Amino acid sequence: MDRTTPIPVKLENRPLVESVVIDLPAPSLSDNTADLDRLTLTLARMGFSPVRICPRRMDETVRKMRSQGLVFRAVLGYAGSHWELLDVIDDSSGATVFGFAVDLGTTTLVLRLIDISGRKTVGQITINNPQSKWGEDILSRILFARSRHTLLELRAALLEACSHAMGQLLKDSGVEASSVYAVSCAGNTAMSHFFWGLDPSHICREPYLPAANTFPAAFASELGFDFLPASLLYLFPNVGSYVGGDVLAGVVAADLANSVQPRMLIDVGTNAEVILGNREWLLACAGAAGPALEGGVVERGMQAFPGAIDRVRIDRKTLEPDFRVLGGGKAAGICGSGLIDLVAEMFFAKILTIQGKFSTQLDCPRFRNTPDGRAYALALPSQTADAQEILVSEIDIGVFLKSKAAMYTILSVICRKVGLDFADLEDIYIAGNFGKHIDPEMAVRIGMIPDLPLDRYHGIGNSSLLGASMLLCDRTLLAEVEKVRSMITYVELNVNVELINEFRGALFLPHTDPRLFPSVRP
Amino acid sequence: MDRTTPIPVKLENRPLVESVVIDLPAPSLSDNTADLDRLTLTLARMGFSPVRICPRRMDETVRKMRSQGLVFRAVLGYAGSHWELLDVIDDSSGATVFGFAVDLGTTTLVLRLIDISGRKTVGQITINNPQSKWGEDILSRILFARSRHTLLELRAALLEACSHAMGQLLKDSGVEASSVYAVSCAGNTAMSHFFWGLDPSHICREPYLPAANTFPAAFASELGFDFLPASLLYLFPNVGSYVGGDVLAGVVAADLANSVQPRMLIDVGTNAEVILGNREWLLACAGAAGPALEGGVVERGMQAFPGAIDRVRIDRKTLEPDFRVLGGGKAAGICGSGLIDLVAEMFFAKILTIQGKFSTQLDCPRFRNTPDGRAYALALPSQTADAQEILVSEIDIGVFLKSKAAMYTILSVICRKVGLDFADLEDIYIAGNFGKHIDPEMAVRIGMIPDLPLDRYHGIGNSSLLGASMLLCDRTLLAEVEKVRSMITYVELNVNVELINEFRGALFLPHTDPRLFPSVRP
Repeated sequence: MDRTTPIPVKLENRPLVESVVIDLPAPSLSDNTADLDRLTLTLARMGFSPVRICPRRMDETVRKMRSQGLVFRAVLGYAGSHWELLDVIDDSSGATVFGFAVDLGTTTLVLRLIDISGRKTVGQITINNPQSKWGEDILSRILFARSRHTLLELRAALLEACSHAMGQLLKDSGVEASSVYAVSCAGNTAMSHFFWGLDPSHICREPYLPAANTFPAAFASELGFDFLPASLLYLFPNVGSYVGGDVLAGVVAADLANSVQPRMLIDVGTNAEVILGNREWLLACAGAAGPALEGGVVERGMQAFPGAIDRVRIDRKTLEPDFRVLGGGKAAGICGSGLIDLVAEMFFAKILTIQGKFSTQLDCPRFRNTPDGRAYALALPSQTADAQEILVSEIDIGVFLKSKAAMYTILSVICRKVGLDFADLEDIYIAGNFGKHIDPEMAVRIGMIPDLPLDRYHGIGNSSLLGASMLLCDRTLLAEVEKVRSMITYVELNVNVELINEFRGALFLPHTDPRLFPSVRP
Repeated sequence: MDRTTPIPVKLENRPLVESVVIDLPAPSLSDNTADLDRLTLTLARMGFSPVRICPRRMDETVRKMRSQGLVFRAVLGYAGSHWELLDVIDDSSGATVFGFAVDLGTTTLVLRLIDISGRKTVGQITINNPQSKWGEDILSRILFARSRHTLLELRAALLEACSHAMGQLLKDSGVEASSVYAVSCAGNTAMSHFFWGLDPSHICREPYLPAANTFPAAFASELGFDFLPASLLYLFPNVGSYVGGDVLAGVVAADLANSVQPRMLIDVGTNAEVILGNREWLLACAGAAGPALEGGVVERGMQAFPGAIDRVRIDRKTLEPDFRVLGGGKAAGICGSGLIDLVAEMFFAKILTIQGKFSTQLDCPRFRNTPDGRAYALALPSQTADAQEILVSEIDIGVFLKSKAAMYTILSVICRKVGLDFADLEDIYIAGNFGKHIDPEMAVRIGMIPDLPLDRYHGIGNSSLLGASMLLCDRTLLAEVEKVRSMITYVELNVNVELINEFRGALFLPHTDPRLFPSVRP
């Protein structure tokens, strides 16, 4: 998180929540319009129309208006078809309103507290998704949540974890819960169902039906966030069972749907999703490329958190490695971008052959023989937190190469679907925690991503969280999201001969066809 | 209540609640739209758009849809700007949906259970407003309800009484609470505030500000009717502090706002309200003519309930009365229409002078001397429930004449305001329990209402209840109500010399100016 970078939005002064000073015309015998009607008429003249006031809040609203002598701040939340009057506060309170952006990930939940008026991040927390207790993979959870009872159990765990993290963020920043007026969430389709309390059981069986793809703006308290009495909650819609609100949020964050030239968004999380398109069309596909790239399947792999090795350089002569540990200190493991660097450097140092095997001709001081076969000692006991060497085995590398090949294959296939060459792609956004740390030069060197000028690659971090954050600061995105949703076509990657050949070629370093990677010269 | 008369509506097949059979297209791999989206798309094609599904009901809705195999009935409630999906029920349940119409009167509450699909009254109950405990008059209650706490106390009593009566109606008719999908209520401005839980304290002090004049359609459960989980609740809007939703409902019931010729609605309840107008303009005024006309201030007065004398004839020769008792049996008191008959007949029998005093020249066998002065024995001990004579004193008649004079004065003044003669009025609707029983010939004879052809007078009973009932069966009235609301101008009757002179002339029988009542010849 970078607190100094403002949330990037196209339209300034169009936040999802507006806090405006109201000075109502004084009532008189000749103008004895009812108080609430006086307010809604005044708001309509200011451009807020229609305004809805929740029945249970009407009396409180009138009493607050009267106690403020009809001069006060009205806080209004945009709900697409109408504005919701969220609060009436003291005129002197200032215009600052807050919101939460939430990325509902399968593995981790990321919550961000945002000063909506100032478009600034106030704080951010990443926590493990407590639903992992019922299964690391989403399918186990869907199976578990078949009954209403077990669904609510999963949901309660999720809400409780979110509420707790929100409370922590508020405490750390000294912001009152009563100043939070919006919660903007995005997750994949299953997570969206868990979050809203909808039966997910049909998502994973033919013909793959979500219970709902769209969710109305609702009061956060109505959905279980009792400590946020005046807050609206927005959940990004899904395109379908395979393309969720997290992807939609990413597409909006990368602004794919307003570009003349084709752009691509590569989102590597628990799964890998690729979206390609421009202002006229959008294609989405998904693949299981993720876990390895996030460091998940490597023996000593880990996510890009403090302690992870995220940068590796290998001396071409001594074959000794040099690396960077996130957050400094001793190394605990290696994350995805570290792994990319490692393989790319081993390849250029000729420790690895183009087949991804350890060289048999090289006498490398870091080679080790282990019960699982040969391994490369990236870190020595003196450099690690547990005083054990960090070893990367040939098997680890084999698994990793399958992931990188899967990624490249997906990119090739989706481009070929629409008759595009990689060279036609003007901008490629790499999202996910992985995308934030990746060095495109290294990723190109191993043949994971196309050999294009490096300035076409942009790491945008957690694009789901970014999209959710941007919505808080730019309400025009509510309509943009609907537009994007209707534009996206999901492409099923059928396992056929063409795909398998593509994949086989991509298993090499960088590829069996060197013409695809002209800039890669070991 | 007349159960055989259908609720009169202009547009058939436009009920507030629709129950429609849905046969969703089967999902497939090529059409895997989410279940709820599939439903809303299908509903949109049937003309129901936009449809809102309450967040807390979404999961239940999907589960019901799936358990019905995607063929079911959807029950939809019209909310003006959108449709609310209220229920998903078994296809074989039939199309019958029910609703309650409620007249929230200061003194009595009238609740009617209506078969919306068949436009039939199923049952009706009249109960005392339990708020009378805190004051018979509305002003005492407004003063009592100044704090949020006491307001909620008053509100709870009202809701509890309504809930109880609703439960009774359901039990008596064998209708399930789950088949009730709408509650349509109308009351004066203060009663509307009590009902909705809004601070009424500014209604009665300059500049007479209601907290709110309009109320959104809301879930009945959200407002306290927990036993009606799938029901929407509608409360007629108010025009202002003096013209409430009950009057608006009456204007809609009498269809004043679509007439080319001017019409008049006279509603005598706890208060008397008069609305005059046509499709271009509507004037409303109110006066304290009510209590006497409803029998309230006469010693033995009572409302037009069983036991009340509602018809009186006096033999011109013997001066002996003959009367009818509502519901048969012995007499318990006299209601407004009985009083009108009595005074009219006494006048023509010359028992009363044109000044409203008992004749001193007549030897009437029914005259009695009481500590309060002279009285007329309308019923003998053998004819009454308590074996006591029912006496009507000169003082009673004096009070009654003030009420009838007030009524005639209001009618004169409001017509003069717009330069109309009474003869210009094509139709005059007399509402209220009083209006249901009144004999226009007798009311003209005493000079209470203008001397017009009797076929111009129409008794329409409880017009507030009728308007509320009609809304259930004709959703186009939601817009009609808003139209009428914006058309009505409230006219304050300033106490000035002109008004006092008018009133003084009207205190006589029928009036000091006999040219105003050419047909009245004793």
